[in-house]
Amino acid sequence: MLPNEDIIFAPASGNGGAVCIIRISGSGCLELADKLVRLRRGIVGDTPGFSLRYGEIPGLDEVLVSIFRAPKSYTGEDMVELSCHASQYILSEIMNRLSNAGARVAEPGEFTRRAFVNGKMDLAQAEAVADIISSSSSEQHRLALNQLKGGFSKELSDIRAQLLELSSLMELELDFSEEEVEFADRRKLKSLLDASIEHCRALADSFKLGNAVRNGVPVAIIGAPNSGKSTLLNALLKDDRAIVSDIPGTTRDTVEETCVLGGILFRFIDTAGIRKASDEIEKLGIQRTYKKAAQAEIVLGLIDIAETLDSNSFAEAARELAGLVDTERQNLIILANKVDLSAVNKNVKDINNFVLPVDLQNANIRLIHLSAKTGQGMEELVQSLISSTGISSASGTLVTNARHAAALSATAEALLQVRDGMASNLPTDLLAEDLRTALNHLGSITGHITSNEVLGEIFSTFCIGK
Amino acid sequence: MLPNEDIIFAPASGNGGAVCIIRISGSGCLELADKLVRLRRGIVGDTPGFSLRYGEIPGLDEVLVSIFRAPKSYTGEDMVELSCHASQYILSEIMNRLSNAGARVAEPGEFTRRAFVNGKMDLAQAEAVADIISSSSSEQHRLALNQLKGGFSKELSDIRAQLLELSSLMELELDFSEEEVEFADRRKLKSLLDASIEHCRALADSFKLGNAVRNGVPVAIIGAPNSGKSTLLNALLKDDRAIVSDIPGTTRDTVEETCVLGGILFRFIDTAGIRKASDEIEKLGIQRTYKKAAQAEIVLGLIDIAETLDSNSFAEAARELAGLVDTERQNLIILANKVDLSAVNKNVKDINNFVLPVDLQNANIRLIHLSAKTGQGMEELVQSLISSTGISSASGTLVTNARHAAALSATAEALLQVRDGMASNLPTDLLAEDLRTALNHLGSITGHITSNEVLGEIFSTFCIGK
Repeated sequence: MLPNEDIIFAPASGNGGAVCIIRISGSGCLELADKLVRLRRGIVGDTPGFSLRYGEIPGLDEVLVSIFRAPKSYTGEDMVELSCHASQYILSEIMNRLSNAGARVAEPGEFTRRAFVNGKMDLAQAEAVADIISSSSSEQHRLALNQLKGGFSKELSDIRAQLLELSSLMELELDFSEEEVEFADRRKLKSLLDASIEHCRALADSFKLGNAVRNGVPVAIIGAPNSGKSTLLNALLKDDRAIVSDIPGTTRDTVEETCVLGGILFRFIDTAGIRKASDEIEKLGIQRTYKKAAQAEIVLGLIDIAETLDSNSFAEAARELAGLVDTERQNLIILANKVDLSAVNKNVKDINNFVLPVDLQNANIRLIHLSAKTGQGMEELVQSLISSTGISSASGTLVTNARHAAALSATAEALLQVRDGMASNLPTDLLAEDLRTALNHLGSITGHITSNEVLGEIFSTFCIGK
Repeated sequence: MLPNEDIIFAPASGNGGAVCIIRISGSGCLELADKLVRLRRGIVGDTPGFSLRYGEIPGLDEVLVSIFRAPKSYTGEDMVELSCHASQYILSEIMNRLSNAGARVAEPGEFTRRAFVNGKMDLAQAEAVADIISSSSSEQHRLALNQLKGGFSKELSDIRAQLLELSSLMELELDFSEEEVEFADRRKLKSLLDASIEHCRALADSFKLGNAVRNGVPVAIIGAPNSGKSTLLNALLKDDRAIVSDIPGTTRDTVEETCVLGGILFRFIDTAGIRKASDEIEKLGIQRTYKKAAQAEIVLGLIDIAETLDSNSFAEAARELAGLVDTERQNLIILANKVDLSAVNKNVKDINNFVLPVDLQNANIRLIHLSAKTGQGMEELVQSLISSTGISSASGTLVTNARHAAALSATAEALLQVRDGMASNLPTDLLAEDLRTALNHLGSITGHITSNEVLGEIFSTFCIGK
């Protein structure tokens, strides 16, 4: 890779607040800072790394200067951070002066890209930086932090070590192939291969869960009109909001349908009420409901039991909901809602008989008696939602990045080629070729082998200043 | 004042961005930080001031720790700043952990209040901190920076020194009063008094300009419908917007009618078009226009000269505009607009004869031939706007704070009592009483004498984290 000749800068903190951080990185940036800032004592260029100094930008502001020296900095280069008063005017003036002094505004993610290029972190860790900033649930955050701290990279490097061992075993066989010796190691080779394939596949498969953690578990709420969908949604969202809104000075881009329960982000999908459609337009609306329900991992099916006369009509309503759900793939939680009102309608029989009919008894279908209004059964619902996801803090490594999942699948695919080739007694040099392909796919995750184009794509999704 | 027993904390940077700063202050906060953060090497409690350290908040984030030791910090107390990844989740977790460790969230301005209480700055400087953050023009900023750096406080302390000299001269007279000696110093005393009154009044009067700099100079644009008001406003706003929008990652709460010209903030007031009102509702709209025009310091009066046939009707239109303006108090800039179109209407006579009639020739009325569309005359207009404000970088100290202006007026008032009392040969001990009142008013500005109530009011307008 080319050395970074430029000095780059960008605001690293957000808008508003009391102070603003401007991050500057690149060889020569300490001397550049001395052109801008007059320290109260000494000069930036003579100050050791990991020091703070008070200074003044003449005619503009009093600033706090953080000094880092290569390679002990975020980017691995010399770095300066200026902490100024958080005024748009001051910020734009400092940026103008930095530009005039020959530095340039950093591209999104350019600081982290330099950290990667300078060997401060691998690519998977660099990608975790963006993830950790956007984390909004503790599970999202746990996975991103594990990835940032190199936990995921460590696991990949274990696989890599196995593949390298495979590779050396094969070369051994290559050396002796002319003598047509069948090595006992062949069995060891095959078992190593199987373990690696299994490991790669398990990681690739964990993307389904990892993606749910990262982007939220999709949950559809379906049911007849007036079965209590909005009341339920509000009841679910209530707890979450209290947590976030007690941080002073923060605002939150409210997506009303997202909330964190038990550390997991859920994405609630609103659907139109299901009823017998009388006209074409209504049919379209209901078709959309079906489609949304099909995208969900968990479906909450509401039945208004204050309007359900007996256990037979309850079973019928439950079957109707189950008909909308692929219970092989999706979890269905049937909510017998409005238990508080069931006594009001004298025609309603004993709701204790409202149970799942035998034909719906399936590991992926549960029934909860609920009152979204009074809160009865809500705790059970929340616990069911959490356990239905299959996510737990004990889940270990989950792949959260589609790029990583694809690379892991491709690695497993290439290893499968090796195994098939071995079974068909292909020449070892052909097998070695497939093994190299597998290593390349694996290496692309941490950036051992990654094109500039891919790098550009990855870092362009970062925010400025990171 | 009481010592501050609590450890306080608050996010000091704004929302979004790549990093977030959490500021912690108070005796014992270094030890508290050690409960939260595991430094890569050593502990916070053993680290010298003005140092940076890498650390980890277990299970949560990798952070950069800035360490300051009393009295060498912003607040004058021990301080720690944690720089973490800018995630709402991480921020709220750190704040929870700080609360659990016994610290509490800071009130708005509480860090600066502690800086004042601990003698790190006087009250006028502390107030400038809030002003510097909200500055959006270079003039606003220049005044706030001067105040922050103590320029204003220095001027006040000069007046204070004069008053103390007065006071000692008076006591001298007091000592000798029984001997009924008329001192020659009485003349010196009076001249000192006059100078101080003059100085206080000049500063109090500068509030009109200072306030305009701080809150924007109000400019009303009036004129008949279709005289080109919107085109003019857009032309004025265009330059300014380009400056601000090239800061990456920043958003701006656009008040469309505010812009900075020549370093001065202008506040353009939109008005309804002036025409002969046909109904009551329209009359109300036009009355509002009059009212808004009356509040402005500068009125831009537009005349569409492509529709103005000759110099007589131009003079008539100019008189009509001037009739809406109090030219004793306000500046009127008459804009003969659409010079680019004047040739199109063959009935329009030579526009070079479109001049101000003799009865409108007044220092506060100017005429500019303009095309807001092509830009002709715009530069002259901008220069006229700037010079009409009376603000220049050479203006020296301008009082920008209503509290300060009121205190200065009250000081001048009390000194006037002293002078009047002297003229009426009041006993010197009565005069000394008025002089003490003057010193108290003056002292309230920098906080020599300020009640806790006033302090509470001042710091409550600050943002959290400052």
